[in-house]
Amino acid sequence: MIKIGVIGYGYWGPNVARNVNICERAELVSICDLDEKRLKKAKSTFPFVKVHSDPKELMTSNEIDAVAVVTPVYTHYDLAKFALENGKHIWVEKPFTSTVAQAEELIELADKVNRMIMVDHTFLFTGAVRKMREIIDSGELGTLFFYDSVRVNLGLFQHDINVVWDLAPHDFSIMTYLIDKNPTAVSAWGTEHFGRGLEDVAYIAVHFDNSFISHFHCNWLSPVKIRKTLISGNKKMLVWDDLSTDEKLKIYDKGVDIKNTAGIHELLVSYRSGDMYVPKVENIEALKLEVDYFVDCIEFDQEPFNDGKAGLLVVKMLDAADSSLKNEGKKIAI
Amino acid sequence: MIKIGVIGYGYWGPNVARNVNICERAELVSICDLDEKRLKKAKSTFPFVKVHSDPKELMTSNEIDAVAVVTPVYTHYDLAKFALENGKHIWVEKPFTSTVAQAEELIELADKVNRMIMVDHTFLFTGAVRKMREIIDSGELGTLFFYDSVRVNLGLFQHDINVVWDLAPHDFSIMTYLIDKNPTAVSAWGTEHFGRGLEDVAYIAVHFDNSFISHFHCNWLSPVKIRKTLISGNKKMLVWDDLSTDEKLKIYDKGVDIKNTAGIHELLVSYRSGDMYVPKVENIEALKLEVDYFVDCIEFDQEPFNDGKAGLLVVKMLDAADSSLKNEGKKIAI
Amino acid sequence: MIKIGVIGYGYWGPNVARNVNICERAELVSICDLDEKRLKKAKSTFPFVKVHSDPKELMTSNEIDAVAVVTPVYTHYDLAKFALENGKHIWVEKPFTSTVAQAEELIELADKVNRMIMVDHTFLFTGAVRKMREIIDSGELGTLFFYDSVRVNLGLFQHDINVVWDLAPHDFSIMTYLIDKNPTAVSAWGTEHFGRGLEDVAYIAVHFDNSFISHFHCNWLSPVKIRKTLISGNKKMLVWDDLSTDEKLKIYDKGVDIKNTAGIHELLVSYRSGDMYVPKVENIEALKLEVDYFVDCIEFDQEPFNDGKAGLLVVKMLDAADSSLKNEGKKIAI
Amino acid sequence: MIKIGVIGYGYWGPNVARNVNICERAELVSICDLDEKRLKKAKSTFPFVKVHSDPKELMTSNEIDAVAVVTPVYTHYDLAKFALENGKHIWVEKPFTSTVAQAEELIELADKVNRMIMVDHTFLFTGAVRKMREIIDSGELGTLFFYDSVRVNLGLFQHDINVVWDLAPHDFSIMTYLIDKNPTAVSAWGTEHFGRGLEDVAYIAVHFDNSFISHFHCNWLSPVKIRKTLISGNKKMLVWDDLSTDEKLKIYDKGVDIKNTAGIHELLVSYRSGDMYVPKVENIEALKLEVDYFVDCIEFDQEPFNDGKAGLLVVKMLDAADSSLKNEGKKIAI
Repeated sequence: MIKIGVIGYGYWGPNVARNVNICERAELVSICDLDEKRLKKAKSTFPFVKVHSDPKELMTSNEIDAVAVVTPVYTHYDLAKFALENGKHIWVEKPFTSTVAQAEELIELADKVNRMIMVDHTFLFTGAVRKMREIIDSGELGTLFFYDSVRVNLGLFQHDINVVWDLAPHDFSIMTYLIDKNPTAVSAWGTEHFGRGLEDVAYIAVHFDNSFISHFHCNWLSPVKIRKTLISGNKKMLVWDDLSTDEKLKIYDKGVDIKNTAGIHELLVSYRSGDMYVPKVENIEALKLEVDYFVDCIEFDQEPFNDGKAGLLVVKMLDAADSSLKNEGKKIAI
Repeated sequence: MIKIGVIGYGYWGPNVARNVNICERAELVSICDLDEKRLKKAKSTFPFVKVHSDPKELMTSNEIDAVAVVTPVYTHYDLAKFALENGKHIWVEKPFTSTVAQAEELIELADKVNRMIMVDHTFLFTGAVRKMREIIDSGELGTLFFYDSVRVNLGLFQHDINVVWDLAPHDFSIMTYLIDKNPTAVSAWGTEHFGRGLEDVAYIAVHFDNSFISHFHCNWLSPVKIRKTLISGNKKMLVWDDLSTDEKLKIYDKGVDIKNTAGIHELLVSYRSGDMYVPKVENIEALKLEVDYFVDCIEFDQEPFNDGKAGLLVVKMLDAADSSLKNEGKKIAI
Repeated sequence: MIKIGVIGYGYWGPNVARNVNICERAELVSICDLDEKRLKKAKSTFPFVKVHSDPKELMTSNEIDAVAVVTPVYTHYDLAKFALENGKHIWVEKPFTSTVAQAEELIELADKVNRMIMVDHTFLFTGAVRKMREIIDSGELGTLFFYDSVRVNLGLFQHDINVVWDLAPHDFSIMTYLIDKNPTAVSAWGTEHFGRGLEDVAYIAVHFDNSFISHFHCNWLSPVKIRKTLISGNKKMLVWDDLSTDEKLKIYDKGVDIKNTAGIHELLVSYRSGDMYVPKVENIEALKLEVDYFVDCIEFDQEPFNDGKAGLLVVKMLDAADSSLKNEGKKIAI
Repeated sequence: MIKIGVIGYGYWGPNVARNVNICERAELVSICDLDEKRLKKAKSTFPFVKVHSDPKELMTSNEIDAVAVVTPVYTHYDLAKFALENGKHIWVEKPFTSTVAQAEELIELADKVNRMIMVDHTFLFTGAVRKMREIIDSGELGTLFFYDSVRVNLGLFQHDINVVWDLAPHDFSIMTYLIDKNPTAVSAWGTEHFGRGLEDVAYIAVHFDNSFISHFHCNWLSPVKIRKTLISGNKKMLVWDDLSTDEKLKIYDKGVDIKNTAGIHELLVSYRSGDMYVPKVENIEALKLEVDYFVDCIEFDQEPFNDGKAGLLVVKMLDAADSSLKNEGKKIAI
């Protein structure tokens, strides 16, 4: 039985706590929040838990094996560090940290104290992402051409971070999970409209050492909600519409074949278009699976795929995107 | 009666000829093409026209007042120049020319010989674009935040130009027509996948001297066809889906109001969301309206809004996008 | 403070209990269910309630003013009768009763003991239905032509009632609420495919004393879920798509005008088509509003619009539909 | 070379003539219409054809092997009869005739004079219908449960026939083609709103000698255009949306399995839901295929599947639907 304490009981914390509670191999031991009202709510939902308003109290408790840090990003480093130093495994809300250096230090520390870091990239546990991974790994799409993601909406404006740090962690973690390639550089454009110095519209390109390209549109000022990703390969192509209930993934048997015949102006292009199918996507709560996996990794001393390094890569990309935004879209190596 | 000759009878030429023919104040006099088979087809459709395989023959004819140049872009400059030199008004297929210098020279020449240039940005005559112009001009959207355009499809690959020169002329001409602001710079990323040195995927940002931003995704490798534009303002927001039959435009009474209260971490953000409406969009063939307008402008000695200068601006943007593509996304002033 | 007991804690009961609990003018006093497991769940969610496995125990309690009967329809009559006889107001899950006679008897009894009956036609409290009522009442649609409803899905098969009794109560209650007209007759066709004698596909027409017609397609064997209603009037027309998140209602400024000119074969028909709009629909939980309204009606001694008579009308229609199904679609007066 | 004359050059006639003209084994010889203006248009499109204003002139010509009757339904019988009597094969626009007796007489006559009747049920030649036939014939859907068709729109009102005779011929011909079963009876409800005695809204059920049911909603007063058919079987289920460009057919691997365990109230129902696929549908003009097939059948002395008997079945169903409409939805045997 892995004993878990949850720090942060705002928007996401209650979901983490609930899933820890229903996991049969985990025990929800403590919950911490600075806000008394939230603690009261936690207590009424889980009458058996200990509640704390001081996170150190929770993190130094001998009754706890692992700590879930579900707080704003600027607090992650301090909390995670303290938890690791006290011998706890940690689950950290995304994005992992505010800076690359922080992430690197935590990884090193975890290594030293022999504890595990899992970064909560929840989307990786959804049926849709797991199915896409399966499809891409099987080679069904062939060599990949591009990855194009649109995640736009009206709001929710964050007070301390721009739209890149708010929305792109989802897409960066998904893309790097699906595509078995290392990004080499990031460029980004964006703008802001409320005098806060925090971009509300951003376009980000992530480059690789070949002709594959990925692109991300993050936006808090769109009249409509769009969550759509296109992934094109030379064999098949895929559309992921996360807002669709019944047709989240569509796999197109489509392609193009080009023959450049020297000396002739007419291109020899042939287009292929066959059946399309919508694979069944499992409908289990992603966070439930992730909590199970967290417990697995602790129990069997396994390195999770969404470990500190995965979190670090995302932070590097966010950091590079930010630098590029401040430098007129300059390509920033990562 | 304005007498018109059409040069180029491939894909678009027959449409131009047909609309010239049904215009009551115009006369379709001649058609020219290098391909005998196409000329035969032209003759069978319009038994009364003269057909030529030498464009100079057509352009030097005294029977003709105006010439429509509906040929590949690399031929525009020579043909348009010769036509102007022979005292003809010209209609030029988009994009206007292959280079900025060519466009500038043609504008100067037209001015000297007192002839008119109209660049065939057909989209500006569609019901949807005219309705959007009306809505934006009325101030209904308020101050504009951003313009985001996605024009993606599988193919059609062009043999001599990249996806930017193929697809972006539509969106650049529409955006500059709708938004009464001068772009200051362009940046672009893209990639190509068939060893031809011609990008098939491109992302283009067009910058202005304020916080307004516009962005264009052009793509020949998408499994699905998307033609969607988002325009957000501080009063209302608009979505244009050109593939929709009945709901091309949607106007959202949505907005966000942000108050930054110093010293407080919580943002005071309020979101507004009211009715949405789908304005009726006129369903007249755009090219028909454009031909009427061409004849109007000649008859009444009027400068068209889609004149050489409008065409030049689009060429400048295309040229800057190309330079940026070749320079790692560097911001290129225009 | 109105004190309420809930009988039945299966699928819908927990929702009723939860909304009674959050209503500030109501008190959730007791919950009854025959199933021990469900009672345990009720107790853990609402530790303060009394739980009973004998409904009579709950209904005879002096601590209770009103009883919510949230059980299978064949039990409604006995439970409701007993509750009324013990001086309780009753909330009855739809459909009100299994037979017309039962409904009539309960209405009479409630009248005699001066207690209120509310039939839980939850849909009437949704934002979409309330907005449609407002639109129709305002005369915006003009004289109504027809009401067409499609409610189809794969499952959920009921063990004791056919698809008409399962799905049509929703649509009958909505239609009779929206349309201020009295239905005169019902006809229905249907079929069943599993040898149970219970139709799984049914088409029902409800007739009026004029040219207005309403029609209902209820189906447990459809591959796709559809919840779509068309309401056409001579001024405007409406589509309600209950599965849409953002565009539940669409109001079309469309119409047709017909002039029959004697002696001429050509009809003079003119079609009108203007803007369409999507009114904002309130997003409050319908059941919450309904519970508030239940409490209001008790407190202020008001007759609810969804009273026993409204419930009786629906039962009459269901009963007539059933008769028609058994008589080859014969028109059954109601 | 089959020599063909076309009678009727209104809405559909020009399409028939055009496809006859491009068929390499057919010759478009003559066109007849009562309207001089239409004849002029025919002559200008096909300068080589003979034009007639008297259909008898065309039908008695020795130069003609076959006659296409593309006129209003009330003229079909006289024209078709005269053509057959003059030894011509006939192509008759749908619906075949105005009455069952007329259709039967024409079939008998054709038999006697050894000439062919083809009824122009164009939809049977579309890619979507041919693909559905292929899927159903293969047994992929299993035993069929129901066929549900919705064909609604605003207009076009016809001056001489009701909405059933206008729209249902499409669906009756498609359904009887796809489903290899003989309908036994028809019932229908409908209403009209303009004092013309011609229904503008109709609901039709077509019955069979087993539990399979088919239903048709035909409507000229709908704000939105819907062309949707559901076909459910015990193995798979199908949705045909004829308005979709890319996803006309969807095949769902869905099903339900019911076990009625005596004495237990709970049904043992299991639902199955797997992948969905969208088969590629051929995009050839249906009328082109149909004209080719007409020529084939004449050349090779073959009975077409869309022969007089297929046309007669549709007329019987239309006639029965009409009778049912006039008799309060009474089930009319066919």
